[in-house]
Amino acid sequence: MNAKYTIGLDYGTNSVRSLLVNVANGEEVASAVWVYEHGEQGVILGRDPNLARQHPADYLKGAEVTIKRALSAAKKKVRGFEPEQVIGIGVDTTGSTPLPVDAKGQPLTFQKRFDKDPAAMAWLWKDHTGVAEAEEITALAAKMRPQYLAKCGGTYSSEWFFSKILHCKRTSPKVFKAAHSWVELADFVPAALTGTESPDKLTVGVCAAGHKAMFNAEWGGYPDAKFLGKLDPALADLRSRLQTRAATIETAVGGLTAAWAKRTGLPADIPVATGAFDAHLGGVGSGIAPGALVKIIGTSTCDMMVAPADEELADIPGLCGIVNGSILPGFYGLEAGQSAVGDIFNWFVNYLQPGGKAGTHEALTAGAAKLKPGESGLLALDWNNGNRTILVDQRLTGLLLGQTLYTTPAEIYRALIEATAFGALTIINRFEEYGVKVKQVVNCGGIAEKNPVVMQIYADVTGRPMKVSRSAQTCALGSAIAGAVVAGAYPNVPAAQKKMTGLKPRVFKPNAKAHKVYRELYTLYRTLHDAFGTKQWQGGLHGVMKKLLEIRTRARS
Amino acid sequence: MNAKYTIGLDYGTNSVRSLLVNVANGEEVASAVWVYEHGEQGVILGRDPNLARQHPADYLKGAEVTIKRALSAAKKKVRGFEPEQVIGIGVDTTGSTPLPVDAKGQPLTFQKRFDKDPAAMAWLWKDHTGVAEAEEITALAAKMRPQYLAKCGGTYSSEWFFSKILHCKRTSPKVFKAAHSWVELADFVPAALTGTESPDKLTVGVCAAGHKAMFNAEWGGYPDAKFLGKLDPALADLRSRLQTRAATIETAVGGLTAAWAKRTGLPADIPVATGAFDAHLGGVGSGIAPGALVKIIGTSTCDMMVAPADEELADIPGLCGIVNGSILPGFYGLEAGQSAVGDIFNWFVNYLQPGGKAGTHEALTAGAAKLKPGESGLLALDWNNGNRTILVDQRLTGLLLGQTLYTTPAEIYRALIEATAFGALTIINRFEEYGVKVKQVVNCGGIAEKNPVVMQIYADVTGRPMKVSRSAQTCALGSAIAGAVVAGAYPNVPAAQKKMTGLKPRVFKPNAKAHKVYRELYTLYRTLHDAFGTKQWQGGLHGVMKKLLEIRTRARS
Repeated sequence: MNAKYTIGLDYGTNSVRSLLVNVANGEEVASAVWVYEHGEQGVILGRDPNLARQHPADYLKGAEVTIKRALSAAKKKVRGFEPEQVIGIGVDTTGSTPLPVDAKGQPLTFQKRFDKDPAAMAWLWKDHTGVAEAEEITALAAKMRPQYLAKCGGTYSSEWFFSKILHCKRTSPKVFKAAHSWVELADFVPAALTGTESPDKLTVGVCAAGHKAMFNAEWGGYPDAKFLGKLDPALADLRSRLQTRAATIETAVGGLTAAWAKRTGLPADIPVATGAFDAHLGGVGSGIAPGALVKIIGTSTCDMMVAPADEELADIPGLCGIVNGSILPGFYGLEAGQSAVGDIFNWFVNYLQPGGKAGTHEALTAGAAKLKPGESGLLALDWNNGNRTILVDQRLTGLLLGQTLYTTPAEIYRALIEATAFGALTIINRFEEYGVKVKQVVNCGGIAEKNPVVMQIYADVTGRPMKVSRSAQTCALGSAIAGAVVAGAYPNVPAAQKKMTGLKPRVFKPNAKAHKVYRELYTLYRTLHDAFGTKQWQGGLHGVMKKLLEIRTRARS
Repeated sequence: MNAKYTIGLDYGTNSVRSLLVNVANGEEVASAVWVYEHGEQGVILGRDPNLARQHPADYLKGAEVTIKRALSAAKKKVRGFEPEQVIGIGVDTTGSTPLPVDAKGQPLTFQKRFDKDPAAMAWLWKDHTGVAEAEEITALAAKMRPQYLAKCGGTYSSEWFFSKILHCKRTSPKVFKAAHSWVELADFVPAALTGTESPDKLTVGVCAAGHKAMFNAEWGGYPDAKFLGKLDPALADLRSRLQTRAATIETAVGGLTAAWAKRTGLPADIPVATGAFDAHLGGVGSGIAPGALVKIIGTSTCDMMVAPADEELADIPGLCGIVNGSILPGFYGLEAGQSAVGDIFNWFVNYLQPGGKAGTHEALTAGAAKLKPGESGLLALDWNNGNRTILVDQRLTGLLLGQTLYTTPAEIYRALIEATAFGALTIINRFEEYGVKVKQVVNCGGIAEKNPVVMQIYADVTGRPMKVSRSAQTCALGSAIAGAVVAGAYPNVPAAQKKMTGLKPRVFKPNAKAHKVYRELYTLYRTLHDAFGTKQWQGGLHGVMKKLLEIRTRARS
């Protein structure tokens, strides 16, 4: 009866999860998932393939349904469990997923006149309708405020806050005009749970604001009105209604309202932490600390690190973001990533459907495991969805090279795994080139959990041990940790991490012989990477196919 | 009862065909095919994947079986048909397929002591065991006799006569020592049918000798003894036992022996034409003439042209061969080709097996036909089996570029078809760059016959009408034409071609809009071709993927 619990609420692209965690040891006691009920698997699509929206009603119903279910599951599992033992809540979400709100902070789409208008809904992270606006913002910042770009890899993305808002202004002026302001999903959910949605009470998290909206205390918060006004006078006007400060996850935005206590069965007034992005709280749930690279491997990857904010840190070209406090208070949060990893394997299996019935992930993985490094003679680039880090270029595509008349699906599958590993190594190298030492690599996410072949290839390619996070739900666990800190169970996040996170016992150690081959292959990968991905590269490629054949001959002998 | 017929004997990789043709009009009256009974589908393989041999007994039995069957089929089909109406025979074979023979011209492997020794059998065209020897011959010729290389694209291949003989000398000295001489399959069959196998009677065809054994009247026939002696004194010795003259297909090597007349049911003494390679007689059967490019499209392609031998002709870099009289007497025979065409499509269907049950050639072709040029954003190189013309480099491999997370099997299939079309265009351009004008393109072979989508893409890519040969068996038909000429039915090959060959009525005309897109895509193909295929190329490739996306956007809008 003494045990205390917190809830991590994790808003993904298709569903929301509630995870109930024992504060003392991080034990994940109960969990519930609910798939959003609007759109296709929670995503509202349009004729324009770039459009991807969500209905905010799903966020609220999702919190209610999953919290209730998680509590009821806990009751069955833990003798004597009472909801009163839950002492706090943390929230992580996708992002940048901004939604237009009225003067009271309520989603515009809750108004009848806007209830079917996608522009009035939440603009999901992967909505790319603002491509032209993103280019415009990048160009203006390059000219007028280069410091803005230096913190986000040199390019402002179409996935981000102001690109979406500016696109709304230009294409759905009615919605834009009706909106009092715009709120990130990561801020909206904690505000809704605590009744702090109205502009005078709203807490903005530094994670979303810093990584996606160019918020930085160094230049006084959001981009200045002069800059925004150059994009559109209405944006300068909007800025006056945005918050001037931003909080870390160690700050509570308020206490759970009586209404939400009733809806969920939780005690009223328990603190709710400031929201952050899933990948950042996934870093927290994986025990992120200086020197540890946390790789969250899913359809894409997020590669997270932290570096002390009181030490000098150079701007790192190609990194998606560098934001003070976005992961751990007192540390810069560094975000890198690959635009597709699991998605590339899924493309191969689901779109190409190779090998007839033998074309499952399991069968292809088994086939790939039998091959030696270099044996296939293949080399691929992991760019089927562009390159996030270090090239920051969505207009790149995949490449496969070295196929013969006998190339098999398993050989290609392995080449695709290796390509993502080479991409991962490129990110590690980039961190280290700019003085951020990678002392250990901790992986989490479905592929890290379930595919030891992938993990071993990553170890062999990078020449580093691959550790795997103990939790299968590191994002939700990170949120639960934030909940524990705001509830006062721990003085700060690192203290909570020490007790609530851990690693799986199995560590994938690099094989020296394999690593030696991969060093040669990586040189070739890097040649192709630079040849097709950078403007500067000049050279010849006559040696690439021959070198692959030479490596193949050695591998086969 | 007045009709006259000739037989074309066509020796392929896996089987032999007899085609009975009406001399007056080229009508293909009857045909019979027999799959060789030794090895796997007629090919004897070894542990070394480069090894590919054939048993000469199959050549003789194949002639008997198929001629008998063709005659018997003709009897059923043509009222009153009598074998006595057959007036001549022509022969085409694969090559270079040399076999060691004894002093009487009999295959060594017919001796009991050698009857299981692959070195004593026929060394099939695709046997690549002599790679090292080919490099040695190329290097020596480059230094000592550059004129030899100028006629065969700059590289002496492991598939050719002397590479194989030298490899035999080094690895099977017993066989080499026992061999009195070596004979090309194209010469062996006519000799066997006419009892002219012995060295004093043997007729050597200029096609095989010229294209594969550096035979050229300009320098007195085969390479000189000094050159061959530098490779191995035994080769200089062998040269003294090789023929000094070479004949065209308009020369009869002799008359059918009584024994063969009895075995087949044909009249004795009918003339048998000098043999030549399948592709060359395929050119004849497709009506080859100055200005006409004949493309024989199968697993690979042969691209054949002729140019008047009494006019100046530059050496053409990258062409497999330029030999006076190898196709038509009085004309240079020019041979180019692609190392894989149908084999690339077969690889995709049989090895990758994409799209589950929808992955047949038919279904993929149907899917490819629905796509517009450039719509997939894909670009491929047709190098899964190396590049014969114009790079003459077997150590090149395939490349696919532009794939996204939504790329489908039909899109890749179309990209592979387009890649082979770009390769075809590169050959056409090379002919024209060196003054051999391509005024029309005549296609033959299974793909030309059966796949109008491929033919249309070839027309759109090259911007030229694609004609298709009337005959489905142009090689055998070409042999039958040679038989008709040596039998005196026509004064020469062109006169026979006029009556005995023709085109299908359907011509594939280039679509101007599609051709415009393909001109842009070809520029990108050529960039990749030169970047990966040549030592000279220096440049950047940053624009390639972006240009493909730009073309894709236009194609989709």
